[in-house]
Amino acid sequence: MTTIELYFDYVSPYAYLAWVDLGRIAARRGLEIQPRPVLFAGLLGASGALGPAEIPAKRRWMWRDVVRCATRRDVPFRGPPAHPFNPLLALRVSLAAPGPERRDVVDALFRAAWEHGRDLADPNVVRDTIAGLDPDALLARAASDDGKRALRDATQAAIDRGVFGVPTCYVGDEPFFGADRLDDLELHLDGKLSIDEALVRSLIERPAAATRSR
Amino acid sequence: MTTIELYFDYVSPYAYLAWVDLGRIAARRGLEIQPRPVLFAGLLGASGALGPAEIPAKRRWMWRDVVRCATRRDVPFRGPPAHPFNPLLALRVSLAAPGPERRDVVDALFRAAWEHGRDLADPNVVRDTIAGLDPDALLARAASDDGKRALRDATQAAIDRGVFGVPTCYVGDEPFFGADRLDDLELHLDGKLSIDEALVRSLIERPAAATRSR
Repeated sequence: MTTIELYFDYVSPYAYLAWVDLGRIAARRGLEIQPRPVLFAGLLGASGALGPAEIPAKRRWMWRDVVRCATRRDVPFRGPPAHPFNPLLALRVSLAAPGPERRDVVDALFRAAWEHGRDLADPNVVRDTIAGLDPDALLARAASDDGKRALRDATQAAIDRGVFGVPTCYVGDEPFFGADRLDDLELHLDGKLSIDEALVRSLIERPAAATRSR
Repeated sequence: MTTIELYFDYVSPYAYLAWVDLGRIAARRGLEIQPRPVLFAGLLGASGALGPAEIPAKRRWMWRDVVRCATRRDVPFRGPPAHPFNPLLALRVSLAAPGPERRDVVDALFRAAWEHGRDLADPNVVRDTIAGLDPDALLARAASDDGKRALRDATQAAIDRGVFGVPTCYVGDEPFFGADRLDDLELHLDGKLSIDEALVRSLIERPAAATRSR
């Protein structure tokens, strides 16, 4: 069975849109999704980039775009009470869940924040949300040094792989960045996404002729 | 006739893709495109954001994505010899061209860089490219204090309007950011893009509950 890896952080509305869309694609095609929680702030810290919520004009546009995308895809959308919010506990709890169970935990937490408008920074909300999924064990592991290290390690492993933002999907070694690239992902699954690799390599290798002083 | 404003910089491969796509949409629908040259580096400077070419992992992904987008849309694509390159002269020349002529200048310069692989940082290339379009007058104006001020003013006016990146299209007051949002733009033209304005306002007004220290 083909596996699609999804690097995500609950803080990203586009990651939520990708989660819902990817679930539909996986159900339709009989694929497996491997959710990979990472700290988006850690990705940004590694590159020096700003998140969209950190650029006021981009943040205003982002919410229009997100509502439009959710409407077009018929994805239930309310959004969390505050944003950005601290996603650490939710991410650590998700990593603490073993393989098959992790998808249920991730689905419940994503929907709590974005469909039902709950605050994942509140430990009681996280506990409530995973009530049927062995919350004591997951919360204990999430709070442990091992649980904290697991998220740091997962984020670093993503950075080492070339992940710079969320959502990022991988099909094998082929990355797809953005909730708006799942149509490309499907073309790739069908073997219909051709790419001129020599041209890509050539573009990557071209020198920079101008740099900004910062 | 409906006018679509396009804020762009020649340095952006996505702006080139949007230029070609928008040209097809405009021809099909009988629309007018109003090209608005701005200095992308100026937008980035105003927000503190990094451009995709300034984040190594994102730059690698971007070229794969750009080649894929060009292939899917059947847009001729070679790319400039060096990137990023200094687009100042090309932008100033474009602003110097009066209304109707500007579209021809912009089209020639975009294609020179991205279809034919020429270096717009080279004044001889710019002159060559606009050879049939009154190059002496355009180059003289581009080199003047007025020509330089015009680009600074145009970039500031874009920032004041809320433009944070390129390509950004406006249909009236409705912005569409990204070469991948032209399908939304077409839905909007058809009056088929509904958006829950109250939800958008509510999301914009929600407080931040977490900020990164930088």
